[in-house]
Order: sequence, then C-alpha cells, then structure tokens
Amino acid sequence: MSFSYQHLFAFTTEVLRKMGFCGEDSAECARVFLAAETRGISTHGLIRLSDYFKLWEAGRINVKPDIRIVHESPCTAVIDGDGTIGMLPAVRGMQTAINKAQTAGTGWVAVRNSSNFGIAGYYAMMALEHDMIGFSCTNASPLVAPTFSAVPMLGTNPIAMAAPAGKQPPFVADFATTPVTRGKFTVASKKGEKIGFGYAQDAAGNPSDDPAVIERGGSMLPLGGDRAHGSHKGYCLGAMVDILAAVLSGANFGPFVPPMMSYLPLLDRKSGEGWGHFFGAVRVDAFMPAEEFKARMDRWIEVMRKAKPAAGQSCVRIPGDPERENEKRTAKEGITLLPQVIADLQSIAEKTGVPF
Amino acid sequence: MSFSYQHLFAFTTEVLRKMGFCGEDSAECARVFLAAETRGISTHGLIRLSDYFKLWEAGRINVKPDIRIVHESPCTAVIDGDGTIGMLPAVRGMQTAINKAQTAGTGWVAVRNSSNFGIAGYYAMMALEHDMIGFSCTNASPLVAPTFSAVPMLGTNPIAMAAPAGKQPPFVADFATTPVTRGKFTVASKKGEKIGFGYAQDAAGNPSDDPAVIERGGSMLPLGGDRAHGSHKGYCLGAMVDILAAVLSGANFGPFVPPMMSYLPLLDRKSGEGWGHFFGAVRVDAFMPAEEFKARMDRWIEVMRKAKPAAGQSCVRIPGDPERENEKRTAKEGITLLPQVIADLQSIAEKTGVPF
Repeated sequence: MSFSYQHLFAFTTEVLRKMGFCGEDSAECARVFLAAETRGISTHGLIRLSDYFKLWEAGRINVKPDIRIVHESPCTAVIDGDGTIGMLPAVRGMQTAINKAQTAGTGWVAVRNSSNFGIAGYYAMMALEHDMIGFSCTNASPLVAPTFSAVPMLGTNPIAMAAPAGKQPPFVADFATTPVTRGKFTVASKKGEKIGFGYAQDAAGNPSDDPAVIERGGSMLPLGGDRAHGSHKGYCLGAMVDILAAVLSGANFGPFVPPMMSYLPLLDRKSGEGWGHFFGAVRVDAFMPAEEFKARMDRWIEVMRKAKPAAGQSCVRIPGDPERENEKRTAKEGITLLPQVIADLQSIAEKTGVPF
Repeated sequence: MSFSYQHLFAFTTEVLRKMGFCGEDSAECARVFLAAETRGISTHGLIRLSDYFKLWEAGRINVKPDIRIVHESPCTAVIDGDGTIGMLPAVRGMQTAINKAQTAGTGWVAVRNSSNFGIAGYYAMMALEHDMIGFSCTNASPLVAPTFSAVPMLGTNPIAMAAPAGKQPPFVADFATTPVTRGKFTVASKKGEKIGFGYAQDAAGNPSDDPAVIERGGSMLPLGGDRAHGSHKGYCLGAMVDILAAVLSGANFGPFVPPMMSYLPLLDRKSGEGWGHFFGAVRVDAFMPAEEFKARMDRWIEVMRKAKPAAGQSCVRIPGDPERENEKRTAKEGITLLPQVIADLQSIAEKTGVPF
C-alpha cells in the first residue's frame, strides 16, 4: 500500500510533537525518516519510528535535549547530544562541520551521547549545496564479529561520502561496513529461506547460512565475509568508524553501544555516553576552483557510466544512482510501506491520537 | 635467503643515488621500501625496485624533482610531485598535513603528478608521534572492475588510518579496497593453481577462478567480491579514494592512471598529471586531551583482544598486529627475499656497479 510524502511527513512530525519534541525538531527528524523512504533505504525509514516510540515509552529518549558544543577549535568540535533521537545531534553536527569549513576550509565534528541517526548519506549530502565534500559515519550497537572473533564487537558502522558534480548528479556513497543489512536476515528468516554463506556465523564462530543464527548468539560478518575474501578489511573499516565516532567523541564504543530496541536491557558497563557519530565537510575550493572540480567530477562520472557493462548487465552505475531512481519512482508512485509497518504506525496513531 | 636491514637499506639508497636522486631523497625512499619488507608487505617492497629502475631507464621518473605546494589554505594544500618516485611527494604531503594540523588542528593534502608510493600505512603512521590520527590513500593504475563493469576502471586504491594509543601499540589499518592483492594472482598462476571465486572476472565480466585471467583482459573485483556480498561497497571505497586522491588533486583518475610497468605504453588520453594521493592529519587534542584519547584507545584495544575467539582461532588481532609481528621476526631473522627478487637486485647491481 502506498502513501504520499506529505501524508507520511505530517504524520511523523505530529507523532514526534506528541512525544514532546518541539515543532522544528519534529520536522527535522521527519525529513530524515522520509529521506530514507524516498531513497529506497526503507530499513532506516518509518519501520524504525516504532522502535524510537518504544524507546521513548521506556524513558530512554530525551525529547527536550540541550544539544551543545562541549569542545571546539577553528576546524573541529565535539557535540553532546544529551541522549536524544540521533537525527537532531547529527544535523547539528554536520551543520557545525559545514560552518567551520566555511571559515577554516574544512570542518570535523565528533558527536557523543546520541542514538541511531537513520541514513548516513543524509548528512553527507548536506555539504553538497555549499560546494563541499561531505563525510558522515556512525557506530551502532554490536552485531558484527571482527575477523577471528566468535562474538559481535562492532555495529554495522556505515560510512557516507558525497561529492558535488556540475551537469551530472552528485556522487553519494552510503553503505554499511557489512556485506548486507540486518534486514536481509529478517526477510529470509520470515520466508524460511537460507541466506547463503559469507554473511553470518554461529555462536561458536562457525560459518552459517541460517538467517536465524543472529538471534541465537551468532554474528554478522564484516564486508569481505571471510578472511580469504578480505573480512579483515571490513573489520578495519568498522573499527575506523568506531574510533572516529566514539573513541574520539567520548561515546560508547565497540560492545558497549546501547541497544536500539527498548526490550533489550541497558548494559551494565559503559565506555562513554550513548552512540557516537563523526562528520566532515571539505570546501572543494580549498584545493581547486569549485567549477574545475565539478567539471572533473562530471568527467569522472561520464567515464564510469560509459564503461563496457559485464555480461548480462545493462550499465555501470554511479554511487547515488539507485537512490535517485527510487526518489523519481516514489515521487510518481508514492511511498510503499510493508503491512507490518502500517500496523505499527496505526498502533502509534491510536496511542497518540494522531490520525493515520 | 635472508639479508640484514642495514645491507638492503645501504644497497637501495646507493642504487637510488646512482639513478640521480640526492642522498636525502634516496634514504627517504629506501626507508619506505624497507618498511614494506619489515612489516611483511613484501608485495610493495624491494620486488618493486626493479620496476622503478626500469621506469627510470625508460625516462619516466624525474630524479631531480621540484616538489612544490601549488595551492594552500590554513588546513589544506595541493602538492605537485613533478613526476618523481611516489615516496618523495608522499612524505612531503604527509609532513605538510602534519605541519598544518599543528597550527590549524587538522591538515589535508592532495598530491598530483606522483607515482606508486609503496605502502599507504607508512605515511599514516607518521602522524602517531605527534599524537595525531593519520590518514593516507592513493589511486593506482586500473585493475579493478566497478560492480557491473566488464573492464577495469579503478586501481586497488588502498586506504590507511593510524591512531595512537597509550600503553598499547597504535591502531594501524592499511588495506587495498580489493579482497586480495595482485600478488595472490601471480603466485597462484606460477603454481598452476585456481584462486577460487570472488576475486576476478574474465574479459566479458563473468566470474572466474583462473589467476591468469587478468593478463587476458579480465579484472580484479572490488572488496565484497560480487554484488550479493557487497562488491558495490568495495567499488564505493575505491571510487572515494580516486575522487580524493585524483579528482581533487588534479591527477589522472580512473582508467587514465599511467602504468607502473615500463613495458606498458603510456596512455593516449589523460585526465590530469601522474598518480594522486590524499593525506590527512588530525590533532587528537582538537577533540579531547591526548592522554584521555590514548587511554580510551588502550581500552578499545584491550576489549577487542579479549573477545572470545572463533572456533579454531587463538585470538582476535588488532589492525597493525600482523605487521608488528613481522617487524619483530625480521629484526631477529633478517629480511627474506624471493629468489626472483634477489636476481632482479643482482641485475641492478651489475648495471649500476653498486655491490649487492
């Protein structure tokens, strides 16, 4: 069943207001939720609204946060998110990075005491209109086993980078440092299908193709899958994100990141405050005139697109293309939600009195 | 057969001097060559000296370069390597990033008109003694097919990040954005063995387990291996490196990067000058007191090391551990070179009159 952007945006904003967020903050968060839907990353879209709602019911989300810069230099800052929903300190973090880049050439902001911020690409893309390259990454609660570990020690820790082009659309890479998303396991599990090897391991660290293995103490594998195919490189990437987003910000790192699900207990031990993010903004003209860079990006994109496609493929795509295709499709056809998500939103509608 | 560090360092330095590099530049390059050997990354060690030597014989290496900053801001710079051996503009680039970080908090340097710089980790690690996090990446001549491409459009484009710790050794990630190195293909090819799937494709873009497929118009695959296992994420990583190192610096990008091998013709078309690199240095105390960060890194490292090992494994390692183990081993046992590398060095010895 499909819905208009306006309808879902108004509903999400109103629910967040009922939870206690101010109007501006509610709209800010709703934009990020809806961006996930329009860009086809529905695993980070409205399916998560009920998770946040339940976290709020459990008293684990601060809806009147004092998001503040706790340390800064001309091109860096540390921001404390005051335990609120991740989108708010994330937008503030990226905006601070952009502001610092305006005057200093580059800006780098580490955020602590935050939570799940949705899609990483949203923040990296904020840099584009300023002729800047944007970077964004976040840690997340432990799901992924480092190479040779039997237990999850890192989150799916996504990385995003956006670079402006001229005539061409921008380059937007946005990806978890695992082969697939957690959602692939859920879907396969519900269908009773195997997931294939290279994605998960059981509680002893043996390779497994059972999607239910995660619920039984197993782990997701880092990008690369196994050691022979470079899983240690995926582990490096997840670790790099954890160090920048959490060790450097004062957030919880590695296995200490608090759960996103309200039914999971908070951990006894901590290594900081909440989740951590890291944002960067780089003025292109701190290196070469922006018009020159954008013309070079145009050529880069055109050259990649013209590469001879592999057997059975129609074309080579540029990072950001699949999401743009989804934006066009949802603008025309509306946003399709799964029956389970609709049921969740209806339940929230009943609890809050916001019509759905 | 194994050799002492001192012997190989003296030989390499003297060969570079005979090629026409000044004494200081020769020693600088020799340190990077030898670091690859001691750290166990021999694919980037003295096996490459004869490649550079042949490039020099072909007149493709400038031994009296005027390496210069062509554009700069308080925390950024673009450096022109003047067509010399990659190590020299790379060391200058990273040193410039560190100098800028000293005063501005962070420093970011893009390098163009360079060539192969050896191991990326060497430059990232230069930041450590300054209590900085170091970043380093480079593009390289095309070997890797983007997802859905039949042809190589990107290099193996490695990424390195080094972060200082306190009591623990530093975190040093240093990896190509492909599942394995090119060297794995050469070795399997010589042994007449298959390499397994997930590493290469043939000239039509079909999966292949034949290590000789690269010489017959095939390509290496990005980290992830195939689309289902996230090769589009490896493609994103390789592309991010290419954009930072080459589009932003004015170097050749993508398929235009000139070959490292003197027997390969220079390309008709170009998109800039030489190879490109990108370096970053971040003062830890631009975010939190350095001692606090290093204590947090110690805990991060200790927590990861204590993770329960997977079945059949003895321990979880930290990025940088394998290289440190090699440094200890080679310090005791000397540096072992392959017979083919020894023969190459003997040939260089004869041509230059430098005793080996």
